[in-house]
Amino acid sequence: MSRSSNLPFAWRAVRSATALPAFDPGWVWLVGAGPGDPGLLTLHAFNALQQADIIVYDALVDDAILNLARPGAEVEYAGKRGGKASPKQRDISLRLIELARRGKRVLRLKGGDPFLFGRGGEEALALVGADIPFRIVPGVTSGIGGLAYAGIPATHREINHAVTFVTGHMAGGDVPDTINWRALAEGSPVIVIYMGLKHLPRISAELIAAGRSVDEPVAIISQATTARQTVLETTLGRAPRDAEKGAIPAPALIVVGEAVRLRAGLDWLSASLHGRILEPDPLGTRAATGDYSRTAGE
Amino acid sequence: MSRSSNLPFAWRAVRSATALPAFDPGWVWLVGAGPGDPGLLTLHAFNALQQADIIVYDALVDDAILNLARPGAEVEYAGKRGGKASPKQRDISLRLIELARRGKRVLRLKGGDPFLFGRGGEEALALVGADIPFRIVPGVTSGIGGLAYAGIPATHREINHAVTFVTGHMAGGDVPDTINWRALAEGSPVIVIYMGLKHLPRISAELIAAGRSVDEPVAIISQATTARQTVLETTLGRAPRDAEKGAIPAPALIVVGEAVRLRAGLDWLSASLHGRILEPDPLGTRAATGDYSRTAGE
Repeated sequence: MSRSSNLPFAWRAVRSATALPAFDPGWVWLVGAGPGDPGLLTLHAFNALQQADIIVYDALVDDAILNLARPGAEVEYAGKRGGKASPKQRDISLRLIELARRGKRVLRLKGGDPFLFGRGGEEALALVGADIPFRIVPGVTSGIGGLAYAGIPATHREINHAVTFVTGHMAGGDVPDTINWRALAEGSPVIVIYMGLKHLPRISAELIAAGRSVDEPVAIISQATTARQTVLETTLGRAPRDAEKGAIPAPALIVVGEAVRLRAGLDWLSASLHGRILEPDPLGTRAATGDYSRTAGE
Repeated sequence: MSRSSNLPFAWRAVRSATALPAFDPGWVWLVGAGPGDPGLLTLHAFNALQQADIIVYDALVDDAILNLARPGAEVEYAGKRGGKASPKQRDISLRLIELARRGKRVLRLKGGDPFLFGRGGEEALALVGADIPFRIVPGVTSGIGGLAYAGIPATHREINHAVTFVTGHMAGGDVPDTINWRALAEGSPVIVIYMGLKHLPRISAELIAAGRSVDEPVAIISQATTARQTVLETTLGRAPRDAEKGAIPAPALIVVGEAVRLRAGLDWLSASLHGRILEPDPLGTRAATGDYSRTAGE
């Protein structure tokens, strides 16, 4: 259905009405695909999918999104999957350069946003070094979009005025040593950890050692915004054991902080799919926010 | 042009090919409009604009985006402008409830993302209290999208594995007292401050007192991703004075950290608009990242 024959014509009309750019041959567009739901693609990203000659994509790009490529576009995988070694970053950059020099419209498609844990900066600098023109198209990062689909706001006035995004995983597989977990524990009421599942025992221990409560709520969001999304609610103390028991599929986001409590009120997706009853006062502060049950419009 | 008569028909074909949802009467969709460039709207957001009966929008939503509303949609302003008092949060929530109870398709459109400094959680809980069905549509936040259009990655492997987003402004106009600037200075190599212009002298002083260098690079991005975007590069020590001299229009983002140096290599927008020559090695670490000037494809 996604490749239905009238989509290219219809999109051309939308593109012209919205003044979206043409994708010139020999260019590379580094594009964020968002967390998974194709509806979270930006217009620029969709516009790129409708024009690209070749799409070089990551493990984190959902198939539902690749299915939206224009008929005839080549798709080429440049990630790690099933335990096989991943192409080296340098090899990916060289491949983008090679394709651009052949005059292709090259869409480098990355899960989430290319500049937030996406290594887009490295690839773009390689393009600069090779004199290849490029464009950066930001995307909805899973740390925001994935949280929203779990009913968890990244910030909420009664809870936090700062939120930190941190990666729990380095290229070599270790927790980055440069992360000052104590300072993050003190400074960030809400911490969103990307790719942290493997190192959850250490991360949990570090945050607790820095003074965060073992009872602090934690959510683990797997395959956020896709049809396979699951959300596990636990606490900082129980999270490592619960995550192991749950055998949670990657990619998974870990959210630490009181914002997780809001899920009882804001889990709009479960409400619409499964009829979950939402709680208008999940923080127990209704007096402050007002009672809207019998108000305007009745 | 944006309201050209074939856009509604063309969009209907795209919506059907991409399985985007119908907007049912009596629902409220809380939607992030992204930082300004209409191309950074998500497909869900654009789909909402093409179906909504009424659009209740914020000061931070760019006119170029409102111009994409379907012909016949009402648009209603719910923000603060020109020094006039803004409607209270409670009044906005009541208005959304009233419109939904009248059976309208209500699009609540917010700049950036509704759940990152957008107060979307408060409005959604009010809807829950009034039993109004709703959907959350995340958007590209300016702290990521605006940075990308300035050529500054929110993370870069050689620089940081954590980034913090913080608001420099509270409803009452003060710097939030709950922010632990010392801990943020220690824990977050890159700090992105929303709405921090007014309190930049205090924020700069707090970060320097916590040990950040006066020479650390800072960028101030005004009206990010719009046609009026400007970027001021300065340092933590000079930022307050430079910002005052520059008379920078709001909204402005402040980025503190070494990531700002990458702008010399990644400012793709100035390169394509003004022919800016990009530097392939802005951090002076080319040996580590490789020389791509004479490689594949030649």
